[in-house]
Amino acid sequence: MASDEFSLIERYFRQPSNRAVPTQGLRLGIGDDAAVSRVPAACLLVQTIDTLISGRHFPATAKPEDVAYKVLSVNVSDLVAMGAKPWTFLLALTLPDTDKNFLEGFSKGLFAAANDYSIDLIGGDTCRGDLSITIQANGLVPDGCYLERAGAQPGDHIMVSGSIGLAALGLALEQGRIGMDITAAHTCLNALHRPRARTDLIVLLREFASAAIDVSDGLIADLGHVLQQSGVGARLFLDDLDLHPYFSEHDAHSMALNGGDDYQIVFTVPSRNLEGLLDTVTEQGLDVRAIGEIVDDGYQLITQHKAVDLLAHSEFAGGYNHFVA
Amino acid sequence: MASDEFSLIERYFRQPSNRAVPTQGLRLGIGDDAAVSRVPAACLLVQTIDTLISGRHFPATAKPEDVAYKVLSVNVSDLVAMGAKPWTFLLALTLPDTDKNFLEGFSKGLFAAANDYSIDLIGGDTCRGDLSITIQANGLVPDGCYLERAGAQPGDHIMVSGSIGLAALGLALEQGRIGMDITAAHTCLNALHRPRARTDLIVLLREFASAAIDVSDGLIADLGHVLQQSGVGARLFLDDLDLHPYFSEHDAHSMALNGGDDYQIVFTVPSRNLEGLLDTVTEQGLDVRAIGEIVDDGYQLITQHKAVDLLAHSEFAGGYNHFVA
Repeated sequence: MASDEFSLIERYFRQPSNRAVPTQGLRLGIGDDAAVSRVPAACLLVQTIDTLISGRHFPATAKPEDVAYKVLSVNVSDLVAMGAKPWTFLLALTLPDTDKNFLEGFSKGLFAAANDYSIDLIGGDTCRGDLSITIQANGLVPDGCYLERAGAQPGDHIMVSGSIGLAALGLALEQGRIGMDITAAHTCLNALHRPRARTDLIVLLREFASAAIDVSDGLIADLGHVLQQSGVGARLFLDDLDLHPYFSEHDAHSMALNGGDDYQIVFTVPSRNLEGLLDTVTEQGLDVRAIGEIVDDGYQLITQHKAVDLLAHSEFAGGYNHFVA
Repeated sequence: MASDEFSLIERYFRQPSNRAVPTQGLRLGIGDDAAVSRVPAACLLVQTIDTLISGRHFPATAKPEDVAYKVLSVNVSDLVAMGAKPWTFLLALTLPDTDKNFLEGFSKGLFAAANDYSIDLIGGDTCRGDLSITIQANGLVPDGCYLERAGAQPGDHIMVSGSIGLAALGLALEQGRIGMDITAAHTCLNALHRPRARTDLIVLLREFASAAIDVSDGLIADLGHVLQQSGVGARLFLDDLDLHPYFSEHDAHSMALNGGDDYQIVFTVPSRNLEGLLDTVTEQGLDVRAIGEIVDDGYQLITQHKAVDLLAHSEFAGGYNHFVA
């Protein structure tokens, strides 16, 4: 019974949390048929699920630590986009075998991310098969404070966090399609393999935003979901984006805007909230900037030379879609 | 964009529920970064996750309707074992391609099961890869009423629902290892491919049971988890089990007791609750029977001829374990 499912869970996943506080509201964690917890009074439960598959979402050669860190980040990023604080998660891990090195690295990366995000593993399932990891994350948000995609209104400002397109550069570097000096390359590869979900923005989003989404499929595609669900249009100003110099040097802006895997947050802010938002951004030194405005309809990218109709130009409006070859 | 991820979700998974009532507490369902819901006052949240993989948990030739029905049943069965009522679920579906026939059948089976169990799909993720389905199910239980594996006490009666071993017979039939007349075979194959989680037992379990587990890895292995986590032993009476005649005719009791995939519930009942339980069982015509007793230590199977020490006999104490070849 050296490497069976139960001792595997026991050994690698029932680690004591290295956080000082016990999980809020947890009654029963790993080791029963299901986990039992109590959602704190006046809070809503926010739930997301995401799968990463070896060879598709990460290369088979990726470090197990990074794979674990990324899959939790991807899920936490969805919680952030709802204005929800990370709370607990369940892990469904499919493994080809009980490779000790993989499990040690994976466990290390998973608990590092869990610690960074203050989220606790409360249950899971393991089975044998090609490497695939599904995480279901639970977040909490005070009633009345969650954000949805459908909340944008004409006149709202469009804001984005961080630098869009770094993960796309990381992928191109890894595939040998581009070259870069080693320090810059490290930043881009890190953005691809070990993205950091923007939990630092949760309170800001709750207080000032009207709609939000995380950038997983590319800025244009993801903002497009907000527009569609809000029934509005948008004008984006290319020069207002904080893009890596590579994109201008190589006239490769569509690579940044459609790259995906950024896990930054794009959100909208009503005019009445803009001053308060910008004050908070300055006070806290956050990397958040205005990049456009919500309008009645249409979807345009304004560059120095022209206005590109994003609805008509597939090279700009592509995005990543799992079922388009 | 005929078969992309978004239209796929829209077409096959955003079906209007065919149940008359809206999902309790749901604020935001499929189509945003995450689902938002409110756990009803005085209820605890019960959460489980399970993956089924093609070629491992079901044959590649299984009907998509059955695959969907089974994966939801497997998850709901875990909720039942906690005394929790099914509430909502999230689906992570990995598909090799957007096969219309598969998706239509899968969607049909999924919503049939969702309807049978009064559980609603509120979110999910789709990606491309070898067929694998993960469901994360959420259940509700009044505070103070959930069951855990650790609750069994010496003197408790051991009860089980239904007939154990039918799924094992179904598997043997399907693999051509045994033969059977067509009506009997149909029952066993149905038990294997389209198990019905025992939601009819939830209220009974909450009222009378001290510990419970669902039989997924085999009766002996699963009851073993209860014993281990409760720090007790057990004596099981083989003749009290409602086994299919095949097992006696072929002296194949270990096949029934270790077969797994039954999704029946094995549970313990304190003596003071036995009369009430049996009255309810009779009143409601439930297929629940006493099969043994909890003792201080040891794990014995009592047959007509002998007492088998289950801790020493691997042919009886095997169970299904995903990481033992």
